[in-house]
Amino acid sequence: MQTGIRAKLLEAFSKADGEFLSGQKISDYIGCSRTAVWKHMEELRKEGYELEAVRRLGYRITKKPDKISSNEIQLGLKTTMMGRHIHFEEIVSSTQKIARNLANEGVEEGTIVVADQQTNGKGRMARVWYSPKGTGIWMSMIIRPNLPVNQTPQLTLLTAVAIVQAIEELTPLKPEIKWPNDIMLNGKKLVGILTELQAEADQVHSVIIGTGINVNQKIDDFPEELQSIATSIFIETGTVWERAQFIQMILLKFEGLYSLFLTQGFKPIKLLWESYAISLNKKIIARTLSGTIVGKAIGIDDDGVLLIETNNRVIERIYSADIDFQ
Amino acid sequence: MQTGIRAKLLEAFSKADGEFLSGQKISDYIGCSRTAVWKHMEELRKEGYELEAVRRLGYRITKKPDKISSNEIQLGLKTTMMGRHIHFEEIVSSTQKIARNLANEGVEEGTIVVADQQTNGKGRMARVWYSPKGTGIWMSMIIRPNLPVNQTPQLTLLTAVAIVQAIEELTPLKPEIKWPNDIMLNGKKLVGILTELQAEADQVHSVIIGTGINVNQKIDDFPEELQSIATSIFIETGTVWERAQFIQMILLKFEGLYSLFLTQGFKPIKLLWESYAISLNKKIIARTLSGTIVGKAIGIDDDGVLLIETNNRVIERIYSADIDFQ
Repeated sequence: MQTGIRAKLLEAFSKADGEFLSGQKISDYIGCSRTAVWKHMEELRKEGYELEAVRRLGYRITKKPDKISSNEIQLGLKTTMMGRHIHFEEIVSSTQKIARNLANEGVEEGTIVVADQQTNGKGRMARVWYSPKGTGIWMSMIIRPNLPVNQTPQLTLLTAVAIVQAIEELTPLKPEIKWPNDIMLNGKKLVGILTELQAEADQVHSVIIGTGINVNQKIDDFPEELQSIATSIFIETGTVWERAQFIQMILLKFEGLYSLFLTQGFKPIKLLWESYAISLNKKIIARTLSGTIVGKAIGIDDDGVLLIETNNRVIERIYSADIDFQ
Repeated sequence: MQTGIRAKLLEAFSKADGEFLSGQKISDYIGCSRTAVWKHMEELRKEGYELEAVRRLGYRITKKPDKISSNEIQLGLKTTMMGRHIHFEEIVSSTQKIARNLANEGVEEGTIVVADQQTNGKGRMARVWYSPKGTGIWMSMIIRPNLPVNQTPQLTLLTAVAIVQAIEELTPLKPEIKWPNDIMLNGKKLVGILTELQAEADQVHSVIIGTGINVNQKIDDFPEELQSIATSIFIETGTVWERAQFIQMILLKFEGLYSLFLTQGFKPIKLLWESYAISLNKKIIARTLSGTIVGKAIGIDDDGVLLIETNNRVIERIYSADIDFQ
């Protein structure tokens, strides 16, 4: 099918928003014959779309396949900035690496990089993020806030809130946030977030926020060593979810929170974050690059830094660590 | 001339270190006839090398042209890491931009990008840095220190010390450092330094240090608006200098200070920096992104941050600013 006609056809259905569209209306919209429209509909069926045809009413899409592409993400996207430029590839080494280069080239704020598969996806501290084909959301967002460098960790927390809100909006799940960058369900990892920056001394040039979201993996899709510590939205709900719809919702939630952050600072984000956090008021072990700290997580400060009260009542500020509960 | 033979010939002279080399020795070293050697020497003359030929003693190079290339930089370079990988181009938009991409690709620590001309050289805050052909040192160095993000401004100060030391080693000049990133001579700007980083929350991936050094510009080479505020080593000494030799000396000084920094921290660098600083103990006006601060510059702290005591005795910490003296 020609990409132009396919996009037009999907656009027509997207505008109809679940209502029936007559064959005539469709052929007028696209500018081709009803026979041609019928052929294109058959193509959509083959791609996994479920179409309902009712005499006199016409057609409607009852189910989209879980397929991502620039088109799928763009159609129905309600943001004004986030995701307005989409760099989609079927397979990449890492969306983060591509996004870094695009940021360096000066692409517009809100540009996103999405892939159906990553062969070398990375989490925090250059750890591997397992990113198999056609199952999860492997996405990097490029933003250019006018921020000092030390405030960028706040954007990791903001992104965690946006993703939790998107999941709550679309599913019955209630995910929780484990400081700094993991979203958990029933004690297993559902989402990882990696925030990177390009900056000079006191001036951020760009922030590149990578997200790995396990959406439609079955338990057997995970390597054995991950099966006890990772989960997916499918595993938790028993339903296959449309990744493109999730991406749209995440971008929308992110855009709202980011705009709040730019106008009112981190405080409102901090309150939201704390309402989803599981790390707080618990005895934790924080493993940092420079050593291990044991104590009670008492909160995050206005920079987004974790505060741990140690046994001898000293408050330690933790910028980056792996956290376990005691 | 074949690049291989040319490099071999220059290498032979470099090893001889100013002593005469007989034609026989040279032809043995390169592995070609004395007639061929003679032809190659003529080529070098055409490129601007001055060669002295003395019967029975042989040849020596008395003057190299001020030409930069990977070869010129590598021959005689005394470092073990800095500049061991050289990415040289005649003309680039900005060495910093190329270096950022190379850093993203994972090149080795110590890799440098050097150009003979920049069409879009940048200083701090995306300001233009005038970088005409064949006159200055337009260089970006890539390093990968295991540092938290907030310590990277220290590397700007370290680089300033390295460049001042290199200039003092090679010329009779006594440059001074104006916080944070300018090297001055007689109140005019000689060198600019731009430090950028690629990082995640608490972990630097790479630091890219760009330097613009005015070496052989005549006063008329500067655009009119720069003539009263910029200077070059040529303008201050009346002599044309070999840029490749400067680059070698800067890399050597940088490597020494960087190694000191990694083993002993910022303290010894801070002492050196303060000995060259002109901003200290003077009344200054600091223009920052968030406003203007007037007061006395009382020093830098252990992070490399400038401390200003305002008229009402408050100490302000300045991460980034333009500074003028009152």
